[in-house]
Amino acid sequence: MASHLFPPAVYADRLRRAAALAAGAGSGASGPHAQGVGTPLIVTPGPDLAYLTGVRSESFERLTALVLSGSTVTVVVPKLELAILGDSAVPALGSAGIDVTVLDWVDGTDPYALVGEALGAGDRTGTVAVSDSMPALHLLPLTTRLGVRAVLATDILRRLRMIKDAAEVAELRAAGRAIDRVHARMGELLAVGRTEREVAADIADAIVAEGHDHAEFVIVGSGPHGADPHHEVSDRVIEAGDVVVIDIGGPLASGYNSDSTRTYSMGEPSAEVAAAYAHLERAQAASVSAVRPGVTAETIDAAARDVLAQAGLAEYFVHRTGHGIGLSVHEEPYIVAGNDLPVQTGMAFSIEPGVYFPGQWGARIEDIVVVTDQGCEPLNTRPHGLAVL
Amino acid sequence: MASHLFPPAVYADRLRRAAALAAGAGSGASGPHAQGVGTPLIVTPGPDLAYLTGVRSESFERLTALVLSGSTVTVVVPKLELAILGDSAVPALGSAGIDVTVLDWVDGTDPYALVGEALGAGDRTGTVAVSDSMPALHLLPLTTRLGVRAVLATDILRRLRMIKDAAEVAELRAAGRAIDRVHARMGELLAVGRTEREVAADIADAIVAEGHDHAEFVIVGSGPHGADPHHEVSDRVIEAGDVVVIDIGGPLASGYNSDSTRTYSMGEPSAEVAAAYAHLERAQAASVSAVRPGVTAETIDAAARDVLAQAGLAEYFVHRTGHGIGLSVHEEPYIVAGNDLPVQTGMAFSIEPGVYFPGQWGARIEDIVVVTDQGCEPLNTRPHGLAVL
Repeated sequence: MASHLFPPAVYADRLRRAAALAAGAGSGASGPHAQGVGTPLIVTPGPDLAYLTGVRSESFERLTALVLSGSTVTVVVPKLELAILGDSAVPALGSAGIDVTVLDWVDGTDPYALVGEALGAGDRTGTVAVSDSMPALHLLPLTTRLGVRAVLATDILRRLRMIKDAAEVAELRAAGRAIDRVHARMGELLAVGRTEREVAADIADAIVAEGHDHAEFVIVGSGPHGADPHHEVSDRVIEAGDVVVIDIGGPLASGYNSDSTRTYSMGEPSAEVAAAYAHLERAQAASVSAVRPGVTAETIDAAARDVLAQAGLAEYFVHRTGHGIGLSVHEEPYIVAGNDLPVQTGMAFSIEPGVYFPGQWGARIEDIVVVTDQGCEPLNTRPHGLAVL
Repeated sequence: MASHLFPPAVYADRLRRAAALAAGAGSGASGPHAQGVGTPLIVTPGPDLAYLTGVRSESFERLTALVLSGSTVTVVVPKLELAILGDSAVPALGSAGIDVTVLDWVDGTDPYALVGEALGAGDRTGTVAVSDSMPALHLLPLTTRLGVRAVLATDILRRLRMIKDAAEVAELRAAGRAIDRVHARMGELLAVGRTEREVAADIADAIVAEGHDHAEFVIVGSGPHGADPHHEVSDRVIEAGDVVVIDIGGPLASGYNSDSTRTYSMGEPSAEVAAAYAHLERAQAASVSAVRPGVTAETIDAAARDVLAQAGLAEYFVHRTGHGIGLSVHEEPYIVAGNDLPVQTGMAFSIEPGVYFPGQWGARIEDIVVVTDQGCEPLNTRPHGLAVL
């Protein structure tokens, strides 16, 4: 077993739960097939596949797929990428009671036929559930050649992936500590006279030095660039008086991600900046305070939004309050208006309201929190105030 | 216009040609609608979108899409990612005679309805053509909510993207020179006693130092690891006598990629290694010599394969001979058995046969070539022999 993996029993349990949910999904609540195959799951490379099997593949044009059909587990893989299975939980699944059939294929042969074989001829409903990230390049030939209808497996996989177990929370906690150490070093990295790009390059090195596998994203939004929530970096030189948004993160070796934003001021902020920032700080705290099991995602979103609205800043908060995090930087649950999902113990997501004044400046405060039985545990613990450098 | 972009007229021309091909695709060769809308194209972030518009986005869960419907060009984009359009050719397309409608959307609203609006109510066939990389997460709701059938736009987009114009060839040539400079430095980087991972980290730095935007992949396959064509790196220490496969590349700022493999020997190779390698060198040269307009991809593949077969090495060459390259490292045309596509002037692809002896060693020689009127121009010019370090 490669060191970045959990024990085989963890993946075996995830596969069994996914199969059980899929069996329920296709068959309805009753009837002769209620315990049958239901809707087979087909999962291509991406976080869902990593979650279920530990397989990490960047294959695009060559099909790799996990097929869960009833109690049958099959991996379809290009023969020349068989080695990726060696770095996954697949070889050890037998020891955890899961028999996996591996069907390899070579260039020039038809991998979709192997998926058909894996689906079997038995209790099929004619519907398959596919992972979010399956590209059209594979989805359309799969459905056409096999004569099946595809639906999203999002609901099945998010029900599993949204709830982190203790080992996953430990990884997210370690990731949070690692990115906090990078923010703690911002006084060395961020300085007037440097370009955003220079600062970002040093931050990326620090992200790795503090224990990440790599820097997944580094946003350095200085002055007016801070007013664009998705600005990344530029050659702009950081000036005295700038407010600077630093939003950074990446995965540990395990694949679990960090993501934390702090806002810095190059010198003492103006009264106007300080006042707006104080509202933002209260808004972020309001959403964090709102988190506990049973509260809906939209309620958590509204908590920050209401504080900003009462301060007359509603129009400057132009995005959702947060996103789930785990093997993906962005995943379910989304903390957004219209999402009536009640959060549960073990869910992990960002709380990251911001205010953005086009052409002038912006600010954002972002922590990852994990829902606990009583409320939530913030995984980022750097001070929330506007840090004056 | 950002510096990594071509002039606006280049993108305008690509959009017009894509629209023309799409109009043809849906309407058949004749009939009242032969000049009509045909099959609208819907392109989500990825190399197809970069090719057509210069838009680079890593959005996943929030829909960004280019919709080409007849002569109407629409971009659907999340409001908070509007800034990505500023770094693309979109703002300048008007100056090149293309009117683009931008429809932005905010979290909590329905982006698929905007795609429906962009498709228009007019001359629709009920079929849309989608880019290869569109994830199921967007493809399934699009087709369901809009009541349309999806087909792959692969054929339309590959007909454009496969044929590189002079500016694209210039970028690929520059990328080839940049990666050749990295191979030229291998004597400093690759040494007995270092781990594959240490060597790979230095190679990654050299890839950037020699002019790439970043290192996209670094394979250091030493000794038995060289026998796995898709091995990346490990903590294996390189030993005297090892044969080492180094397969490296990445994009320039323009997004066009390099990809070149050379094989190194840590000390004089054994007679057996030298003999097999000599056959591989002849095989690679045979495929390069086979390239000229009108020759099929499978014929080029067979040229290398036949040389190895005659040497009794057929079973050790376990992958296709090559892949197209451009904005993607792997794209059409694939140089593989069963692909009867005749190559044309301007196509760029790798020629990279290899031999792999499981548990022992492997070797591969890879150059990118561009098809010319008379044959082809290799874009990598480092010596092909087994380089003894």
